[in-house]
Amino acid sequence: MSFGIDDLPVRDELRGKSPYGAPQLDVPVRLNTNENPYPLPEPLVERIAERVREAARQLNRYPDRDAVELRTRLAEYLTKTAGHPVGVENVWAANGSNEVIQQLLQTFGGPGRTAIGFEPSYSMHALIARGTGTGWISGPRHEDFTVDVPAAEKAIAEHRPDVVFVTTPNNPTGNAVPAEAVLALYEAAQAAKPSMVIVDEAYVEFSHGASLLPLLEGRPNLVVSRTMSKAFGAAGLRLGYLAAHPAVVDAVQLVRLPYHLSAVTQATALAALEHTDTLLGYVEQLKTERDRLVAGLRDLGYEVTESDANFVQFGRFEDSHAVWRKILDRGVLVRDNGVPGWLRVTAGTPAENDAFLDAARDLKKEQEQSA
Amino acid sequence: MSFGIDDLPVRDELRGKSPYGAPQLDVPVRLNTNENPYPLPEPLVERIAERVREAARQLNRYPDRDAVELRTRLAEYLTKTAGHPVGVENVWAANGSNEVIQQLLQTFGGPGRTAIGFEPSYSMHALIARGTGTGWISGPRHEDFTVDVPAAEKAIAEHRPDVVFVTTPNNPTGNAVPAEAVLALYEAAQAAKPSMVIVDEAYVEFSHGASLLPLLEGRPNLVVSRTMSKAFGAAGLRLGYLAAHPAVVDAVQLVRLPYHLSAVTQATALAALEHTDTLLGYVEQLKTERDRLVAGLRDLGYEVTESDANFVQFGRFEDSHAVWRKILDRGVLVRDNGVPGWLRVTAGTPAENDAFLDAARDLKKEQEQSA
Repeated sequence: MSFGIDDLPVRDELRGKSPYGAPQLDVPVRLNTNENPYPLPEPLVERIAERVREAARQLNRYPDRDAVELRTRLAEYLTKTAGHPVGVENVWAANGSNEVIQQLLQTFGGPGRTAIGFEPSYSMHALIARGTGTGWISGPRHEDFTVDVPAAEKAIAEHRPDVVFVTTPNNPTGNAVPAEAVLALYEAAQAAKPSMVIVDEAYVEFSHGASLLPLLEGRPNLVVSRTMSKAFGAAGLRLGYLAAHPAVVDAVQLVRLPYHLSAVTQATALAALEHTDTLLGYVEQLKTERDRLVAGLRDLGYEVTESDANFVQFGRFEDSHAVWRKILDRGVLVRDNGVPGWLRVTAGTPAENDAFLDAARDLKKEQEQSA
Repeated sequence: MSFGIDDLPVRDELRGKSPYGAPQLDVPVRLNTNENPYPLPEPLVERIAERVREAARQLNRYPDRDAVELRTRLAEYLTKTAGHPVGVENVWAANGSNEVIQQLLQTFGGPGRTAIGFEPSYSMHALIARGTGTGWISGPRHEDFTVDVPAAEKAIAEHRPDVVFVTTPNNPTGNAVPAEAVLALYEAAQAAKPSMVIVDEAYVEFSHGASLLPLLEGRPNLVVSRTMSKAFGAAGLRLGYLAAHPAVVDAVQLVRLPYHLSAVTQATALAALEHTDTLLGYVEQLKTERDRLVAGLRDLGYEVTESDANFVQFGRFEDSHAVWRKILDRGVLVRDNGVPGWLRVTAGTPAENDAFLDAARDLKKEQEQSA
């Protein structure tokens, strides 16, 4: 055996682990990582090149450590789309919502503290908890993947976590959490500790309902996290952000790495924010396509979880990995998220969704013939 | 009092703290953050715009999670300049060397573990230790800021740290650590634990001597960290990297946030690496200017620490903050790093250095007149 990870003095909890990440396979139709299928429009590409050229002329200098212009524009976007006034002092940005969450856990979680999530949910929450030394508690959901509020309240009262994660719309299941449920969890969390409640709204622009941003009013221990990866079609940009009480924005600056957000990232994000209307137009098309996927899969006889996201969870399968493989054999890559009996498909372009629905139809036929 | 950080359930060790970062003041001559004073050449600016335009066309997709092309080019750069063969499997990159160090501490430090540094040194080492729950041990230096090897060996044997930091050239003092000293500390660290030794070479391109990269041979617990902020004149880019045994590169991938390095960052760094020769030409000019600063300050009667970096530590002052203020009053911003009796000045353009030396001359005269 050659010298490997376990021959190094790594932390015990990392031994035998593998890095997180979906397989990056080269197939015709990739519907596995909830990427937006629409490339940025060419005028925006040009604007990015222009803004980055300008930033590159000062690249020898450190970037604006506080990303004030970017946070101002993000605040304007939230104010406009969520119907709740948000200022630069309420907004913080980082390299993807993963880094936002990491900073929040470094501030409010960490060694000797715990966080709870209601699983299945976005698996990075638990992984970032591990990476920051935060204890992880797996909270319950109903069989239909909605949050079981009484059981969740009980878990919060029992474990008294320092951080509570609520993902809405939830990933990988797709369903949204109603405002009343989030409020109940917030109350339970305050009664138990008090603790911070992080509402992860990565997919909220695809929702039938509204953002929970207005809940921030009068709730300083509530944080809403967001990303430009999905609705802005900018997964490659790695721009996550949060909205919260200004004290939360001040607090994460105690743990953020100084100058964490590069000048090219800030320039690119600013360019994208100038094209919000066009990009939100693509979101509307994707919502229509998502609804078509839900209806199409149901027509074929699949079970489908209600979706407020740009992806759809469908099942049920005795061996979901075998089905994943069969769909892949037909040139379509979906995600086997480890939820037993279910798979997840991202809403792609109409042609990509047709290819997926064709594969799903084939599979059903195959199933019926062998039955 | 309005609601503030301490009203939130933040971690106890963060209470009463302030965010890291030098004051960003708008003065004519900024020689405080060791930035490279030379803007990127215009052909490189154009190449960045071109590469980013190309990347922006696929920005809806996640970036290469493993940054293979970038790591390959960085490995080639190291091989060429450090005279030691390094491959893609030896190299890892992140958002600034701060994130590299954070990932290393998440992997090899963290709760229940400790790290040692020989202070004064780069203060982010201790801050990132705090941010990752790693205990911090402040190791000794000689009065002249060289590493006191016997005392350091003793501290390592006594505290048995999991991570040992050696910064060479050291920041903020400027002096390099000889290879024999690093080898002695490595041996001491292996005998005590074994532990990881991180050689922070952020400023090595400005050194009179060679990189310690060849020491990696046969030493899997050694890591060399680097940055494009200084020699590549790209502080705004936030691109740090490390070279080490492939097992170290595998290990940090267990804690790195997936897709941590944006497509625009990767594109920009790749463009800069195409212009290495031009950028290293600027480094040669800065070395000459740095030597001129050292000689000029000594001629004026200041004490100056030997410098292998793009900055110079000078003193001594009874009240270094008062001197910092007086230099600022003359339109030149230097750094008051908290080393009692000393200040740090970055090597700027010839004109900037002239402005600084003029201010230093004025101060001496003022001092002599009042004496």
